[in-house]
Amino acid sequence: MTTTSARTLPTGQDIDAAIAEGRRAYELDRKHVFHSWSAQAQITPMTVLAAEGSYVWDGDGNRLLDFSSQLVNTNIGHQHPKVVAAIAAQAAKLCTVAPQYVNDARSEAARLVAERTPGDLNRVFFTNGGADAVEHAVRMARLHTGRHKVLARYRGYHGGTDTAVNLTGDPRRWPNDRGAAGVVHFNGPFLYRSSFYAQTEEQESQRALEYLDRLIEMEGPSTIAAIILESIPGTAGIMVPPPGYMAGVREICDRHGIMFIADEVMAGFGRSGKWFAIDHFDVVPDLMTFAKGVNSGYVPLGGVAISDAVAATFADRAYPGGLTYSGHPLATAAAVATLNAMQDEDMVANAARIGEQVLGPGLRELAARHPSVGEVRGVGVFWAIELVADRETREPLAPYGGTSAAMGAVVASCKANGLLPFANYNRIHAVPACNVTDAEAAEGLRILDIALGVADGYLG
Amino acid sequence: MTTTSARTLPTGQDIDAAIAEGRRAYELDRKHVFHSWSAQAQITPMTVLAAEGSYVWDGDGNRLLDFSSQLVNTNIGHQHPKVVAAIAAQAAKLCTVAPQYVNDARSEAARLVAERTPGDLNRVFFTNGGADAVEHAVRMARLHTGRHKVLARYRGYHGGTDTAVNLTGDPRRWPNDRGAAGVVHFNGPFLYRSSFYAQTEEQESQRALEYLDRLIEMEGPSTIAAIILESIPGTAGIMVPPPGYMAGVREICDRHGIMFIADEVMAGFGRSGKWFAIDHFDVVPDLMTFAKGVNSGYVPLGGVAISDAVAATFADRAYPGGLTYSGHPLATAAAVATLNAMQDEDMVANAARIGEQVLGPGLRELAARHPSVGEVRGVGVFWAIELVADRETREPLAPYGGTSAAMGAVVASCKANGLLPFANYNRIHAVPACNVTDAEAAEGLRILDIALGVADGYLG
Ligand SMILES: Cc1ncc(COP(=O)(O)O)c(C=O)c1O
Ligand SMILES: Cc1ncc(COP(=O)(O)O)c(C=O)c1O
Repeated sequence: MTTTSARTLPTGQDIDAAIAEGRRAYELDRKHVFHSWSAQAQITPMTVLAAEGSYVWDGDGNRLLDFSSQLVNTNIGHQHPKVVAAIAAQAAKLCTVAPQYVNDARSEAARLVAERTPGDLNRVFFTNGGADAVEHAVRMARLHTGRHKVLARYRGYHGGTDTAVNLTGDPRRWPNDRGAAGVVHFNGPFLYRSSFYAQTEEQESQRALEYLDRLIEMEGPSTIAAIILESIPGTAGIMVPPPGYMAGVREICDRHGIMFIADEVMAGFGRSGKWFAIDHFDVVPDLMTFAKGVNSGYVPLGGVAISDAVAATFADRAYPGGLTYSGHPLATAAAVATLNAMQDEDMVANAARIGEQVLGPGLRELAARHPSVGEVRGVGVFWAIELVADRETREPLAPYGGTSAAMGAVVASCKANGLLPFANYNRIHAVPACNVTDAEAAEGLRILDIALGVADGYLG
Repeated sequence: MTTTSARTLPTGQDIDAAIAEGRRAYELDRKHVFHSWSAQAQITPMTVLAAEGSYVWDGDGNRLLDFSSQLVNTNIGHQHPKVVAAIAAQAAKLCTVAPQYVNDARSEAARLVAERTPGDLNRVFFTNGGADAVEHAVRMARLHTGRHKVLARYRGYHGGTDTAVNLTGDPRRWPNDRGAAGVVHFNGPFLYRSSFYAQTEEQESQRALEYLDRLIEMEGPSTIAAIILESIPGTAGIMVPPPGYMAGVREICDRHGIMFIADEVMAGFGRSGKWFAIDHFDVVPDLMTFAKGVNSGYVPLGGVAISDAVAATFADRAYPGGLTYSGHPLATAAAVATLNAMQDEDMVANAARIGEQVLGPGLRELAARHPSVGEVRGVGVFWAIELVADRETREPLAPYGGTSAAMGAVVASCKANGLLPFANYNRIHAVPACNVTDAEAAEGLRILDIALGVADGYLG
């Protein structure tokens, strides 16, 4: 149990006073707050009293290393002073304005996003988060092509609204699945659990492309508006696509006039050690969805980056979609400050370096020592540890879509030793901020080492 | 043309410097910003340089009385100092935290919302805006009832995501309409353009209920999860439901185990002169969606208020939905400050009084003098002026879903005389802030008087 030495929080607040306030917040939460993805009576949510940089403080005043970046969104860490200051400044200037007017914060954020996106993704439609970005990207693709179907991969996540959750290829779709018209799921490349009996990355890539090609033949290319793919699937397991795969998907899309939507909500804005994960593959999508890292979630914001060809479709024909807070001044001002801070402080390069020099080698070293680790994989500050009950059979340490005593114990060990993990089924993700320091990353590895020891204890 | 006398904006910024900055923002906007509901090449958006209270400043430095509350969301006016201060304070304390943790701002906002909502709507699921609130309310209703269909009225709006826009009963649905499974539209009460050949409010109410009853009989009550209704339809024309209608819908829902979803995104939080528009009818819905006024849109926020019975469904069964920014600390801190400021400054009562004593009588007086006015209707700070080419035939001054030279001229007249209107097809809505002063409301009426004179000039 890591306890802060000082009796104050980073805000200067007395810890005991904060703990008391946190208790009241907990009581009210249990009475009045309805939580995402939860059975409301079966949760005992942790309280967060404060946060700074790579750390958060829980309801007992314990400091935890945030190896989750919350929901993988605080790419610049917590309470970055430049962004906090920008929010206060914009609040004092102009909090909100309707989307139909021009606003300087929105214009500048659009410029900074467009400057970073690959190719001719020159226009930005701002939304409030990732799910609505996906909803609008899909609509743009459908109207641009005049076609209806959208292909999405299994082991992917695209958001919680109806269309987004039906495109989702993880168990969160199941209770929402009413057979959404026009959604077709396919297997993507994932060598460790290959759908294609592949032995090498090359084989996996080639076979996954062949499979996709045949699926499109069967579905009818002329019925398909878009293929949506996380550039690197995140929550579903951080499976970096093998060489050639994304370029192959691009080629298939071009061949059939299908829109390629890259979902960069989680992978984008430095997470992978490049501005966008798609940049690893030298591919330019037709539409790109983003959220989270664009302003680290300090103010709700998402968006769609739009290619010139798709934008041209809506030059003289109205785009039939919108939302009250599209291009919200406070949210976009936070994006401007975030993107500038990331640039000025070289955070994207830091993420790449941490991946190559600290997290990558460190996690591989843990994998070598802990029999419970089936595979570690990732890039930048975007890593998954896949835990297995048996290395030979690769039986996961918790079933797909479920949990297990072993995984519960791993998470509890992380927390008890001062690390806030991101856990999903049989995986722990190591997803700290892009500006995590070498020492913090090393501290995370040390705590994960202990937790993996706990996992080992559950093996047969 | 109203120009500020001083050469500074409310922020203290020099107007000429601000105008120059606004020009740059305009250039960048045209290059990089993709706007809601628009043909991108056919718009020349107005720039907003600043805003304060009931006023905004356009790109030329002209001050305009905001009779739109932007998209009918700035219920407390612009840049309310208490909310601006609360945003800065929360930003300095804790900008963001994932939805699974307890946070004091979120807890307190949930408490304040639940305190205001009618009946046993005791739990709040926070979203980013109105559309995702509707998406989640519909999902809750479907899972709670185990049924699928949702009934929504024509002349209604529920948001821009796929499910929400398909529930929408206005022309914005048309280009998105792929025959959404399970959505059925019905005619609601609207005496001025009665679907039921009614002569009185009583007849309209009774016949609209009979019609709904029969529709449900034909659709099959056991297939219907929910009826969603704006408590007072907003964008579609501010048609206050006649006496008995909402209670009748409640009774129909009770009879068949159908969930009543009240959409209070636009009508809620003081707009109608009560905390919620549904309070005018003494009806308690099963689910209530909100956004906009909850924090005046200073930070993107929406939500669903949930009855005990629906919440109980998700006590031991996971609710399958969520979003990264559910219960965002900055957004909910803005809600706390907004709801407290509205209470402390008695804004809801002010909205009611302005409606009864200033806007209502003033608009009726304008209607009496201007032949272009077919009807004025509303309550609180929520009024519609329905413009017609002919009072006898009630032919609208612009076609349903379209615009006309006459309506363009009316809007231009408003702006030229210093008023920012909310226009929709053949209507101008008078929807100032809840804390609008008598003098400001009177100023608005004077400018509308001139604009209605322009409209009269287009009559046969
Ligand atoms: C790849 C991806 N797309 C979309 C979303 C949905 O974003 P939001 O939760 O902001 O709606 C997420 C959220 O985790 C995501 O990871
Ligand atoms: C009644 C109603 N519901 C839902 C919405 C959608 O809200 P948002 O634009 O925040 O998605 C609106 C927006 O105007 C609305 O008026």
